[in-house]
Amino acid sequence: MALDRKTLQNYILTYKSGLLENILPFWMKHAIDLTDGGFTFCLDRDGTVIDTDKGVWQTGRFTWMLLTMYNEVEQREEWLKMGKHGINFLEKHCYAEDGKMYFVVNKRGDPVRMRRYVFSESFAAIAYAAYFRATGEERYREKAREAFDTFVTYNSTPGLIPPKYSIHRNMRGMGGPMIGIVTAQELRKNLADESYSTHISTWIDEIRQYFLKKEFRAVMENVGQQGEFIDHFDGRTLNPGHAIEGAWFILNEAIHRNFDPELIKMGTTMLDWMWEIGWDKKYGGIYYFRDVKGLPVQEYWHDMKFWWPHNEAVIATLMAYQLTGDQKYATWHQQVHEWAFNHFFFSLFGEWYGYLHRDGRISVPLKGNIWKGSFHVPRMYLMAWKTCEELLQSINRSK
Amino acid sequence: MALDRKTLQNYILTYKSGLLENILPFWMKHAIDLTDGGFTFCLDRDGTVIDTDKGVWQTGRFTWMLLTMYNEVEQREEWLKMGKHGINFLEKHCYAEDGKMYFVVNKRGDPVRMRRYVFSESFAAIAYAAYFRATGEERYREKAREAFDTFVTYNSTPGLIPPKYSIHRNMRGMGGPMIGIVTAQELRKNLADESYSTHISTWIDEIRQYFLKKEFRAVMENVGQQGEFIDHFDGRTLNPGHAIEGAWFILNEAIHRNFDPELIKMGTTMLDWMWEIGWDKKYGGIYYFRDVKGLPVQEYWHDMKFWWPHNEAVIATLMAYQLTGDQKYATWHQQVHEWAFNHFFFSLFGEWYGYLHRDGRISVPLKGNIWKGSFHVPRMYLMAWKTCEELLQSINRSK
Repeated sequence: MALDRKTLQNYILTYKSGLLENILPFWMKHAIDLTDGGFTFCLDRDGTVIDTDKGVWQTGRFTWMLLTMYNEVEQREEWLKMGKHGINFLEKHCYAEDGKMYFVVNKRGDPVRMRRYVFSESFAAIAYAAYFRATGEERYREKAREAFDTFVTYNSTPGLIPPKYSIHRNMRGMGGPMIGIVTAQELRKNLADESYSTHISTWIDEIRQYFLKKEFRAVMENVGQQGEFIDHFDGRTLNPGHAIEGAWFILNEAIHRNFDPELIKMGTTMLDWMWEIGWDKKYGGIYYFRDVKGLPVQEYWHDMKFWWPHNEAVIATLMAYQLTGDQKYATWHQQVHEWAFNHFFFSLFGEWYGYLHRDGRISVPLKGNIWKGSFHVPRMYLMAWKTCEELLQSINRSK
Repeated sequence: MALDRKTLQNYILTYKSGLLENILPFWMKHAIDLTDGGFTFCLDRDGTVIDTDKGVWQTGRFTWMLLTMYNEVEQREEWLKMGKHGINFLEKHCYAEDGKMYFVVNKRGDPVRMRRYVFSESFAAIAYAAYFRATGEERYREKAREAFDTFVTYNSTPGLIPPKYSIHRNMRGMGGPMIGIVTAQELRKNLADESYSTHISTWIDEIRQYFLKKEFRAVMENVGQQGEFIDHFDGRTLNPGHAIEGAWFILNEAIHRNFDPELIKMGTTMLDWMWEIGWDKKYGGIYYFRDVKGLPVQEYWHDMKFWWPHNEAVIATLMAYQLTGDQKYATWHQQVHEWAFNHFFFSLFGEWYGYLHRDGRISVPLKGNIWKGSFHVPRMYLMAWKTCEELLQSINRSK
């Protein structure tokens, strides 16, 4: 199928009005803690707070989302104000004494849990960078750089993140370089600093060199230090949604680099392989985990359908269509869009459900928790809206 | 219903022949690594090894199971020999330099993963104790005591297990005292040392004082240091199968203490509460997690049906029936026995499946992994067989 004018107009309406009238209002109404600052993301289906703990990942991400709306959609005062509300909470409550950021804090902002990883830092970095762009306050350019540097230092200094495995299972994961790429892309854009491209090139090379395995037609999640295939659960377990998210980070870079054909090829290859592995041909939707050899997976929830792989696949298929014109991507986009909207989204109270059984039935009715906040869903709405608008403009131009 | 002679004879046949002709032969055939020692528990449905990693929990547990068969069922040479095979691997490959035990080692026995917890030690302790009883080799009495002492030291010295949470979410979990009880019971029996009863009394008091909550009619999994209810996902999440397992550890202690009525009351109360919370009235089977307030659970796999809660519920209901004569426990036993055998067990290749969806469909066809070895299933067969035999004898005596 091709995306014609009428189809694109319908998609634009869905994404734009969904974002502005459903998704963001849900979080603005239910997630803002005006008493103690920050946001409460653990919400029941109707928006009732079911846990007052505050996830630091989600705090950075929602702050980024609000400020991105302000920077890229419309300079609404409420978005800037609530972005600042998030920034304040990050600065005041989310750092340990050594400068590392917590994973969870409580309602008052006291630390609840520190983890070894530095993803809190990567999400804080993009929040600060977006705030810098919104306000021009120099201090936040520095905060963004500092958080990014912490992320890089921890990920590139062996042993600084205490290893989960011994030297006999010495693995490298795709999560580090992948989140590195998108974080650097945001900083490059919002700090107007092209020097971040160097980091991005390095991480793209790392993914190409170590994680793309032609022999399996798969993007691996964990490999040995030299890219060796690890024939254990640890190394065989694939995360199609994660790899598809990585695919559009690469496609995004292709656009930035003047439609670099090698990067388009790399991103669409990742998407092609992982769509084939991840799409559930029986029930539809994208599996959480698959084994690269088709063996049983150890993680219990392997065949559940989570919200975010579907968000990422909507973005990736649209971008792949935009960059290649290959109609198969329009078909895949329609497929994942329809499955996701039919199963995750019921507009009564707003937002998407997060966790479905393999066959699409709801597993748990909550709308947010420590893992699900206001990020993948609104980012998808925004990016899909913008991409469909660009596609529509190019149809209009060509007529 | 009552368990009459005919019903008991059928159950005995099922449990005894199942254990001796299906479950143990499956593991004896597929899990023993004669080349590198130890056991490979990660097995596909037909017994094919799908991961050669060796879980240390499972190594201690299967070793214990084999030696318990030797000690309590029949002095078969193969059980002793394979028990020794497990003991050798534990001693040779499962200790770090500081004396703490690993969580996973690879096929050759090199360390793959160390965890903070000391459950590897508790399972090694019962393996050594059973080996001491089987052979009288004094050295293994000492090894058992030493592993038990490590378990106790780590669990009772604040900070020795690096805490997962900060002082603002300072919790105590039921896992420590619970595993402590059953470990001490095994050592008391197999080392013939009544001094372990002191530990057991302390842990039972701890569970009674902190984890049993009349106001919720629930056994909590995590509470504050003084037993405070923690109104977050962390504190609200219940694990019915775990609490039902704990129930029969208490009932077992009641038997040891001359049918102590208070312990019978405590154990049956735990069972009553958690059966009510855990049994799925729609599809049958026991939920993995429930929220004490009926709110949504954060853990993704909350409504799946795992093998082991069903194993533990078979034991607990039978013991509760034996100790109280209350026919409701015979009904519950029949309910969980039938659901479990209808859904987890297909005898083509032997052993049980481990992971079902809520509605009883198989989620993953493997028979073993790092979490599922040869422990809960054969222990259930053995204990249920023995309990049914005792029930049958008491009918015979009373006629």
